[in-house]
Amino acid sequence: MTIARADFALPLFMSEIAEQASVQRSRRNSMLVWFTGLSGAGKTTLSRAIEAKLYQRGKQAVVLDGDVIRQGLCRDLGFTEENRAENIRRVGEVSKLLVNAGVLTLAAFISPFEKNRSFVRNLIGTNHFLEIYCKCPLEICESRDVKGLYKKARAGEAPNFVGIDERYEEPKNPELIIDTGSLTVEESTLRIMSLLEEKGLYTF
Amino acid sequence: MTIARADFALPLFMSEIAEQASVQRSRRNSMLVWFTGLSGAGKTTLSRAIEAKLYQRGKQAVVLDGDVIRQGLCRDLGFTEENRAENIRRVGEVSKLLVNAGVLTLAAFISPFEKNRSFVRNLIGTNHFLEIYCKCPLEICESRDVKGLYKKARAGEAPNFVGIDERYEEPKNPELIIDTGSLTVEESTLRIMSLLEEKGLYTF
Repeated sequence: MTIARADFALPLFMSEIAEQASVQRSRRNSMLVWFTGLSGAGKTTLSRAIEAKLYQRGKQAVVLDGDVIRQGLCRDLGFTEENRAENIRRVGEVSKLLVNAGVLTLAAFISPFEKNRSFVRNLIGTNHFLEIYCKCPLEICESRDVKGLYKKARAGEAPNFVGIDERYEEPKNPELIIDTGSLTVEESTLRIMSLLEEKGLYTF
Repeated sequence: MTIARADFALPLFMSEIAEQASVQRSRRNSMLVWFTGLSGAGKTTLSRAIEAKLYQRGKQAVVLDGDVIRQGLCRDLGFTEENRAENIRRVGEVSKLLVNAGVLTLAAFISPFEKNRSFVRNLIGTNHFLEIYCKCPLEICESRDVKGLYKKARAGEAPNFVGIDERYEEPKNPELIIDTGSLTVEESTLRIMSLLEEKGLYTF
């Protein structure tokens, strides 16, 4: 019996080697694509459009969306600067798990603060991180107001709302800027797909 | 210009439909396989072995491992009953995201309390949840002590250690019990692979 169960008692470094091997073989074709921008700038729309395009080409991707995450994983968090940092930290950690497992990850988060986005970039490794700034003037985002959030914010019912009473720090060196104030969804999607193709993410 | 960007302003229900469509097409072949049991019972070893076997067959899986999660996503949590609940809640939420995205997920967590495991089962939906109880006598786990944690616990340096000064509630109706005290890793792995095959998880 001692022999029969001996292999469950292998030294720890053996399972660490197994984990590292798994990470190495998986990470090759994986990446975190991070969509940042104001509410209503089209982050979720674009991430879903990319997911669908990749699916058509037989490539699986996972969308992490701010609204979905805040109803689940981060339901205990609010919108203070500290809570936003924790929200992005958790999303970063989840993304790292996914990228390490070889899953192409599309994350759609306002993520207004540079330091939080940098945290994620460093956590994942800059070679596996693509920052896409969905750049759209506040007036246009507010005029869309798909979720009625700007109306709420103007009425004082949504405190710390980015663009209204919370700042948005523009990305300094994003891998891509998409002008979602003037491009269509299709045009925007094609630009992002070109970037992914350039990075070798789905033509293998 | 108004026309050009009109499609970013689609009503909210359109993106919800897109999300639901994505979940429906993805969930079909996905599941959360939950390994529970004492520290040293072989949960991580088995989940990595299953991941490797699936990889050989061209099926991607993601391993969520207690130690890894506690160094990242849940690094802010300790080992009180409340913190354990939050740890498992977060893992459950992450698993839900993954299963909804079509990713076969293998989770290796002591998860000593029935109510926390039930929470995850209900969150994922019982049809997409397989509970595997890695059953191994405490004496054997302690004699392995791969990470030296039992020694620490006996010395009073690891409070709330499951099996020593914290209870472990055995699963009432797990989908599979693996006697990791007497089976080898290979024998255990084959039994789990049979279960996954039975559930249609990799022969498509």
